[in-house]
Parts: sequence; C-alpha cells; structure tokens
Amino acid sequence: MNITNITKMKAIIDDADIFIFTSHIDPDCDGLGGSLGLMLAFRQLGKKTYTVLCDKFSSKYSWLPHSDEILYDFPKDLPKDKKTVLFTVDAPNIPRLGFDESIINELNPTIINLDHHTSNARFGDLMVFDEKAASSTEVAYRLMQQLDLKLDTSISTLLYTGLITDTGRFRFSNTRSESFECAQHFLRSGAKHNLIIKKLFEEKPFEKLLLEQKVLSTLQNDNGIAWLKCTKKMMEETNCSDTEEFVNKLTEVSGIEISLFFKEASESSTKISLRARGNADVNQIASVFGGGGHAKAAGAKIDLCLDEAIKKVVNECKKSLGHN
Amino acid sequence: MNITNITKMKAIIDDADIFIFTSHIDPDCDGLGGSLGLMLAFRQLGKKTYTVLCDKFSSKYSWLPHSDEILYDFPKDLPKDKKTVLFTVDAPNIPRLGFDESIINELNPTIINLDHHTSNARFGDLMVFDEKAASSTEVAYRLMQQLDLKLDTSISTLLYTGLITDTGRFRFSNTRSESFECAQHFLRSGAKHNLIIKKLFEEKPFEKLLLEQKVLSTLQNDNGIAWLKCTKKMMEETNCSDTEEFVNKLTEVSGIEISLFFKEASESSTKISLRARGNADVNQIASVFGGGGHAKAAGAKIDLCLDEAIKKVVNECKKSLGHN
Repeated sequence: MNITNITKMKAIIDDADIFIFTSHIDPDCDGLGGSLGLMLAFRQLGKKTYTVLCDKFSSKYSWLPHSDEILYDFPKDLPKDKKTVLFTVDAPNIPRLGFDESIINELNPTIINLDHHTSNARFGDLMVFDEKAASSTEVAYRLMQQLDLKLDTSISTLLYTGLITDTGRFRFSNTRSESFECAQHFLRSGAKHNLIIKKLFEEKPFEKLLLEQKVLSTLQNDNGIAWLKCTKKMMEETNCSDTEEFVNKLTEVSGIEISLFFKEASESSTKISLRARGNADVNQIASVFGGGGHAKAAGAKIDLCLDEAIKKVVNECKKSLGHN
Repeated sequence: MNITNITKMKAIIDDADIFIFTSHIDPDCDGLGGSLGLMLAFRQLGKKTYTVLCDKFSSKYSWLPHSDEILYDFPKDLPKDKKTVLFTVDAPNIPRLGFDESIINELNPTIINLDHHTSNARFGDLMVFDEKAASSTEVAYRLMQQLDLKLDTSISTLLYTGLITDTGRFRFSNTRSESFECAQHFLRSGAKHNLIIKKLFEEKPFEKLLLEQKVLSTLQNDNGIAWLKCTKKMMEETNCSDTEEFVNKLTEVSGIEISLFFKEASESSTKISLRARGNADVNQIASVFGGGGHAKAAGAKIDLCLDEAIKKVVNECKKSLGHN
C-alpha cells in the first residue's frame, strides 16, 4: 500500500477536526462500505465525522449499518480551512464525486484520496492507494491498522461488504491471499456474514426472475458470440427493469468467446453490455460504438433500435474474432 | 478440532508404511481434494500413498491435480496388518465408502476417520473431526499443520477447491473466520484460484443453458411456494440431463418460503429437490414421500408421474406452511 507519507498523514489527522467521507456517484457497496466504515473508525479518534454523497444511493443498500446517517449536502458552517478533511473513497477523480466543484473549491479542505483503481488520477493532498487491493475497503482496513483503529461489528460488516462485492464473492482474479486475510479479520470482529449474503444474494425480487425467464428465452449463439436481449415490453410486463447480471449468465458457459446483452432504451436507442474471454477485446468493440470499459468488460449506448443494434454489434464482434 | 490422540496418531503414522486415502461414493470436490491433498502431503513423510475410490469420479473434476493417480482397486499384495492405514476423508460411515466391506475386513487396516459432518458415525481407530469446519479439506489442513506437513501448489489447489465448493464459494453459513484463514494460506502457497474458478463456475456446457431456458419457462409460484419442473422431453431436446443447481435459483428470490424442483425420472417416477427458508422444514416434507435430508435442503424420489408428484408435494408444502 502506498501512503504518500504516513508521518505527515498522522500529523494532518491529529490536527484536523472534521472528516467528511465521500464516494463516487451511484455508489456501490465498496464506496458506501468504505466511507461509512472509515467514518465510524475515525470517531474512535474523537473526530467529528460525516458521510456526504452527491445524491441518493440505491435503496438496495439501505441495510448497510449507519447508512441512515448519510447526508446529501455538506453540513453548514464547516470551517473553511485545511483542518477540514475531505476523504474520498473509491473515486478515481474529483468530477466522479458528482458535486458541483465550486462547493469543494470554496470549502478548500485537505483532500485524502483512498482508492484501488489503476485509473485513479492521483489527486488530493495525500493518497492511500493500492492497485493490487481487491477493494477500497481492503485499503481502508490497512489504513486502520496503521492508525491503530479497531474493527467492530458495524465497521467489519461495512468493509466486508465492499470486499465481497468487488471480488464478485471471491470469484474475480483480484482475489488474493491478503483479501482472505482481511475477510478473516472482518469475520472475527463480528461482520454479519449471513445478513450480507442474504441481502446481496438471496433477495432478488420475484419480478426479476420473471424478467430473466423472458430474457433467457431470447438466447442466441453464433459461433461463440452469444447474446440475450431485453425489450421494453418485457420490462413492462414483468414490472422490472433491473437487468444487472444478465450478461454474466453467458460468461459461465464454456465455448462463448463474447457475451452480449442488449437492452432496449427507447425506440431508437439500445444499451449494450459486453463480456469477453480468451483473446477477445470488448473494449475495442464498445469503442466503435462510442462506449468503453476494459478488455474483458465494456458497455455502450447506441442510437439504433434494438434489432439494428444487435445486427451491427454482432457483426463487429465477428470482425473482431475474424469470423468474416 | 478433535484428534483422538495426537501423540498416538503421530506414533501410528511413524510406524505405518502405507497410506490409502479414500472418500465417499460419488465423491465431490471436498472428498477428492482432501484425499488427494493428504496423499501428496503424506509423501513428504516418505510414506507410500495411494488414493483409492470405489468407482469413477465425475469427469467434471478431472482437472484436479494428481486426479489421474486415483485407483479403483486396492493395490495388490498390501501387507494385511495395522501398518497399512486406511484414511477416510469426508465419509460419515464405512458403507458410504462404497467398497465391498469384506475387502476392508480382510485388509484389516488401521482406520483414520477425517470428517466434518455432524452425522459422522465416529468409526475407525482414530478420528480427526471438526463439525465446525466448513470442509473436510479445512480439517485436513489443520492436521497437516499439526504434523508439520507443508502446503505446495498442488496441495493448496486441492484443499482450496474443497473449501470453495463446501461453502458454496463462501456463501453458506458454515463460512467462518477460520475458513478464510485457510483460504489465505492456500492462496499464499500457490493455489490456482483462477483455474479453480474457471473450472467450477465458468465452464457450464451450452446445452445446460438451453435446458435452463426450458426449465425456467415452467416457473410457478403459489403464495411463497415456488417450483420449476424438467421433463424427459426437455432433456432429450437439449441433450442435457444435468439439473444440478436449478432449485437454488429459487432460493435467491425474496418471498419464497419453499423452493421445489421436479425432475421426471420415468413415466411413473419423479425426483424432487426441496429448499426452505424461514421456518419451513423440508426434511419433514420430504420424509412424507420417503426422502430426507436437512431442514433447509432435502430430496426424495416419488413413484408418481411428474404432474401428479407436483400436485401432491405442493399440497404437502401448503399443509406445512398452514396454507390449507
């Protein structure tokens, strides 16, 4: 883990009065768990702490301990000096925090940037950064150890949730022995394993199963390029528009080089999710349509109707695999 | 962990020449991983070691390191005395090993019984038992530590596979801090995480996805009792008869108290899988039909045609939940 300067950091922390933890827009469990977990941990130092986000987090995560304390505006009358610390968690750059930047500029805080994304812009006054860490909560826990802050049931639950979600429940290749060391400490400190598993993996709405039924009926496979589609009608009929994870169904299947999921956004626009295995590079394919991501997972929004989008994207995938 | 007597065990191990590792019939990754892992570990003591099973293991697991060394008959000319050790892994009792018991009686070995199932019959000359352990491979690793045997890439891969599968990839409530401690050690010692994940979770045959499509189209939900069915025709049309995990799709959904999966075995017999959450006890329901299992997961085979079986079982579930 790279901390700009731990002595300097300790001095800044000692000197600061107020810590505001925040994360990226549309925060996931890693951003929420890291912000809230550190907020609770820093209270052990007698600091005034807040978690402030730019807008509402998904109600799916409202069971996270202390998430009811999240604010959507900076507290009024914050001292506008470096003794206020803005602690960003899991955010690659300032614009991704989603705030009007003039508010941050006016506040003029000391910024501590804690993250694990390679793409992090290395902003802020201090960095706590480990691109090998599976989650920002893993980085947060390492910092806690260095500052001699203790885990408790709530903090462990929050940090463990970030670790579970960012590793796909210990599935992805970012899972390393240090991740399991953290998990061990989190469970030993009371992290609510059964609650987290239930909330994350066992509370799919029945409507989503109905939508999956319809989506799965559209399965197509053209020589290792496989796809599913979801029409607006399917979403209306099932009263469900959550299509997260559907593309991943195809990544579980052998022989599929490129997995695609097409979601009808309107009569003339389609959202696509792309996943690759082997040598396929879906970032390159998504970029043809103005989208992007990583070589193995990417997305785009295309100004074409559903069926036209399918035709064009599948064709681009064929080109990429040398099928035409 | 309860070892009958570690001093006695060390003396027996010192004195023994040949170790035969075995597991239950239709062995899973925990049984296979534990047997093969210990086989390799005991070679560090200079012992002659074999893994012997009563019949073929599933070809799904043929990627497990050293699984090509598995034998299906006891080696000829084994010394018939207590210096031969039969080391049973993950088996609750002798009959579950699947061998003709007269062969074992004739061999008359010292039996070491390593397991984590509460139902273990406590057989054998020595026991290495921990019912809190998530997997037999977790118990095997604890024994290795006590005997100062070292992990290597193959042993770690084998033991980690057992731990992953028996915890449902760290999903089930048997997952505890000690499980993560083991996982940490396994990864640090070179366990092939990406290979295991690929083999276990990313190599579903395409045919199984086609079968899932058909099975999911049969979804029914009657006030918290939900079910799927699979006909012989569906299996013929998709050329797939592997229905494992289908019942678990329903356990991911909120509001479902009892999840059922019905598989047509013949014109007059049906296999059922039952899962419960909350207060429902599916062991009790399965027992009505001559089956059994646990309160939260059970199974049975019923001498009724598919549709008749569905009617009767759903009715029994309704009774159990007080719906009629």
